[in-house]
Amino acid sequence: MKLYHCGGSRGLRALWTIEEIGLDCELVSLPFPPRRATPGYTDLNPVGTVPTLVDGDVVMTESSAIAQYLAARYAADTLAVGVDESDFPAYLDFLHHADATLTFPQTVYLRYAVLERERGLEPAGLLYADWFGKRLAKVERRLSGRDYLCAGRFTVADIAVGYAILLAEKIGLSDRVPPAIAAWFDGLTARPAYQRMLTRDAAAVVLAPGTPLT
Amino acid sequence: MKLYHCGGSRGLRALWTIEEIGLDCELVSLPFPPRRATPGYTDLNPVGTVPTLVDGDVVMTESSAIAQYLAARYAADTLAVGVDESDFPAYLDFLHHADATLTFPQTVYLRYAVLERERGLEPAGLLYADWFGKRLAKVERRLSGRDYLCAGRFTVADIAVGYAILLAEKIGLSDRVPPAIAAWFDGLTARPAYQRMLTRDAAAVVLAPGTPLT
Repeated sequence: MKLYHCGGSRGLRALWTIEEIGLDCELVSLPFPPRRATPGYTDLNPVGTVPTLVDGDVVMTESSAIAQYLAARYAADTLAVGVDESDFPAYLDFLHHADATLTFPQTVYLRYAVLERERGLEPAGLLYADWFGKRLAKVERRLSGRDYLCAGRFTVADIAVGYAILLAEKIGLSDRVPPAIAAWFDGLTARPAYQRMLTRDAAAVVLAPGTPLT
Repeated sequence: MKLYHCGGSRGLRALWTIEEIGLDCELVSLPFPPRRATPGYTDLNPVGTVPTLVDGDVVMTESSAIAQYLAARYAADTLAVGVDESDFPAYLDFLHHADATLTFPQTVYLRYAVLERERGLEPAGLLYADWFGKRLAKVERRLSGRDYLCAGRFTVADIAVGYAILLAEKIGLSDRVPPAIAAWFDGLTARPAYQRMLTRDAAAVVLAPGTPLT
């Protein structure tokens, strides 16, 4: 198993899941942006985004989908929520919510208000920072009276949404995170697998730009 | 079963799935934006987005997740791809890809280059129109030699991604859609359930602004 990733990116959803399960996986840390900096990467992932997971014949590129796949295949009784459990609909809902509703506005903020501020489009990013804060209302309500998002236990729904809170810290949006969500996330960061994930991400040697994939 | 929706919105992913399965569902068409125009809507969906599906005790708000849930619960042998099928990973990947990677840039384009052009941030929208076009590369490659995205049959992965192509037509981005994707989508539009979905959406009487939810 190989995970292609850039430091701090949403590939951490996959890496965290891998560490929770204890899977043997090579982490390939790519220079940014991988579609230009690493020849051959778009042969593997035509869109050129990270992450890409390769597991035998399986090639996947969507971070929440990778977490859901790994849980279903390797940790079905713990990290996944089964189709026969009452929280199965909520599980699907939060897995999608994590990326499509929470990380999406974060990336628009990151682009226009941080990475590409010289374009002069900073307000277009700041409006999505506001949007991100308001969109946390669903997670906030869900966590009222619950320790975890689904099924009364830690699942990859917590990993998928938890990454959005980790990213908020990284990009300076943690002031938008309500106290109830911050408290839940603090609990997640105490997990040994979370700490192993951060350590591996920080220790990974980034491939030199221009190095083709082998 | 009730589906809360705004005309043309990604709630069509849910409505299309409902029509494919033949489920009995009331369609509640809300004025835009529902969080402000319909008192009580945020009690149901704290984020105030559409769609919201209510199916007994189940309340869901993410369009691709709703399609996946309805397929798993009501059409597991046809519209869903099971965890034991070889295309299960691709199925999850395209369900997430549809909204998190394809519809996301479409909504940024729609906001800054169409609906809120008076903000003077049109370039921030146009850059995401380009991005949308480039991100179609994964679907384009996948459809080479295939009639459907997964498992050799029509599934909700086709519905989830197909909606992004329908939306591209609605908002003037169909020139970004490669011929192979356009041909696949043309095949989808010939489905009777697709036509019923469009008819129901067009015929729905929109709730008057200010009308509280009952």
